[in-house]
Amino acid sequence: MNGRDTGDFRERVRRSFDKQGAMAMLGAELTRVEPALVEIELPFDQKLTQQHGFLHAGVISAALDSACGYAAYTVIDPEASILTIEFKVNLMSPGRGERFLFRGEITKPGSTIIVADGRAYAIGDGPAKLIASMTGTMMVIRGRQDVTG
Amino acid sequence: MNGRDTGDFRERVRRSFDKQGAMAMLGAELTRVEPALVEIELPFDQKLTQQHGFLHAGVISAALDSACGYAAYTVIDPEASILTIEFKVNLMSPGRGERFLFRGEITKPGSTIIVADGRAYAIGDGPAKLIASMTGTMMVIRGRQDVTG
Amino acid sequence: MNGRDTGDFRERVRRSFDKQGAMAMLGAELTRVEPALVEIELPFDQKLTQQHGFLHAGVISAALDSACGYAAYTVIDPEASILTIEFKVNLMSPGRGERFLFRGEITKPGSTIIVADGRAYAIGDGPAKLIASMTGTMMVIRGRQDVTG
Amino acid sequence: MNGRDTGDFRERVRRSFDKQGAMAMLGAELTRVEPALVEIELPFDQKLTQQHGFLHAGVISAALDSACGYAAYTVIDPEASILTIEFKVNLMSPGRGERFLFRGEITKPGSTIIVADGRAYAIGDGPAKLIASMTGTMMVIRGRQDVTG
Repeated sequence: MNGRDTGDFRERVRRSFDKQGAMAMLGAELTRVEPALVEIELPFDQKLTQQHGFLHAGVISAALDSACGYAAYTVIDPEASILTIEFKVNLMSPGRGERFLFRGEITKPGSTIIVADGRAYAIGDGPAKLIASMTGTMMVIRGRQDVTG
Repeated sequence: MNGRDTGDFRERVRRSFDKQGAMAMLGAELTRVEPALVEIELPFDQKLTQQHGFLHAGVISAALDSACGYAAYTVIDPEASILTIEFKVNLMSPGRGERFLFRGEITKPGSTIIVADGRAYAIGDGPAKLIASMTGTMMVIRGRQDVTG
Repeated sequence: MNGRDTGDFRERVRRSFDKQGAMAMLGAELTRVEPALVEIELPFDQKLTQQHGFLHAGVISAALDSACGYAAYTVIDPEASILTIEFKVNLMSPGRGERFLFRGEITKPGSTIIVADGRAYAIGDGPAKLIASMTGTMMVIRGRQDVTG
Repeated sequence: MNGRDTGDFRERVRRSFDKQGAMAMLGAELTRVEPALVEIELPFDQKLTQQHGFLHAGVISAALDSACGYAAYTVIDPEASILTIEFKVNLMSPGRGERFLFRGEITKPGSTIIVADGRAYAIGDGPAKLIASMTGTMMVIRGRQDVTG
C-alpha cells in the first residue's frame, strides 16, 4: 500500500466525515488531514455542555474518536474501513474556551489493529490548553457490506 | 451521610441533568434514578450517527458518562458535586436500533474517588443487545465555585 | 464450534498456564476453569509488593490479564490462540491480604475480538474485598507460528 | 514547591524503588530520574514470560506503572506519596528482545490528580521497538500512615 495517492485519502476522509451526522450536530469541522494525523475543530456552544457549563466529556470523546479514526483512514488501503474497538479518555482540565482543537495521530499502524492517540485543546486568548487525551484501538474492516467508506 | 433523603437525590440528579445542554441536544431522557444506579434512554436519530449510520461512539460515551456520573451523585452528600477524571469505553456491537438504554452503576463508592461501570444496550424487537461498556473514575468535588450542582 | 469437548479446553488452558514463566514467578495457581470463566489465586508474598507493602499493581494486572486471557481460551477453537491487545485496570483498595483471587469472565465473545472483564479480591478473615477490576480486549490469533498454545 | 532540591527527589525515588519487592523480583533497575521523567530497565528472563515466550503483559504493566508513578514522585512535595488509581495499557508488539526500557512521563501535574504516560521499548540490535504504551492516573496522598515514602 505504498505509492498510495495522498490526494485520494484526503478526499476519502472528507467524504466519510461529511456522512457523520454526529459531527454536523456538534458543529465540528475537519481542519487538517495529513498522513497519520487528523485535526477537527469545534466552536463552543451551550448545547455541548455538561451541568457545570463545561464541554461535555462525551462531546470531547466524539471529536477525539473521529480525529483518531480518520487518522487511521489515512494509513489504510482505499477499500478498507475503520471501526473503533475501544478507547480511554482522560479529562485533565475543564472544557472551557471559545474554540476547541482535537488532534488524532497514529502511534502504531497495522494491517488489522491500529493504535491512535488524541489530544484535545481549548483555544482562546493565550496559549492552547490541554484539556483531554485519548488512546484508542481501531480495527481495519474489509469485505463487510455494512461498514464501508 | 446516611439517613439521606432519597427524594432529595432524585431531585438533585434531575435538576443537574436538565442543565446538560448535551443531553438535550442528543434527545436523551433520564428514565431511572435509584441509589447507585441511573438509566438514560435515547431514541435513534440520524443526527447521532458516524459514517456507517451506527450510533457514534461519542454519543454512546456521552450517555454512558452521564449515567455513570449521576449514579455517583446518588451516593455523595448534597453539597458535593462530581467531575469525571477518565473513562474507558469498549464498543462491542454496532449501535443499530430504534432506541438505546444506558445504565450506570457504582462499583466502588468513596469519599474522593468513585468507580462506576456502565452498559449500553440497543433496544428494538427481541432481547436488548449489549453494544458497549464503560468503566469510569469520578472525583467528588467540594468547595469549588465553578463546579456545583 | 459447538460440541467442543469441555475436558479439552480445561486441559489446553492448564497446559498453556504452565508455560507462563510469570505465573510461576508470582506463585499463582489456576484454581477454576469453566466455560467463559477462569480463576487464579495467589498467596501474599513480600516479593510481590510496591513501596507501601501492598500488592503491586503490575502483579494484580498480570494475574487479571492471565485470568481474562484464559477465559477467552475457553471460548475459541482448539487451533486458535489469544493475544491481549489492551486492558484497563482500576485499583480500588490497597492490595492487603493473605491471599488474592482473580476472576476473568467473557463479556463479549467473538471470532476475532473478545472482551473480558476481571475482578480481583483480597481474601482473609471475613468477606472477600474487591481490590481491582479489569476490562481487556483480546484478539483471536490463527496461523501464526510464534503464537500457539 | 519550586526551588525544590533536585538531589532530594532523586534520592526519594531511589529509596522508594528499593522498597518495591516486585521490582527486585523482576530484575528491574532504575536507570534515569529527571523532573517529570523516570526510566526503568529490565533484561529479558524466561521467568517473565507468558505462554508464547514473550514478556508478560503484567510485567510490562508493572514496570510502566512504576516508571509513571515515580515520574509523579518527582513533581510532588517531599511529604506526599503516590497511589495509582487506574491505568490502561496497549500492547503493540510482542515483548521480544534482550532488554526492555520503560519510560514514564508526566502529562498533567496536579495537586491531587496527576496523569502520566508511559512507553515500553524492546532493545537489542538495531533501533528500539515500541512494544506498549500506558496512560495512568495517579493520586497524591498526604497524611495517611499506611502510604508514605
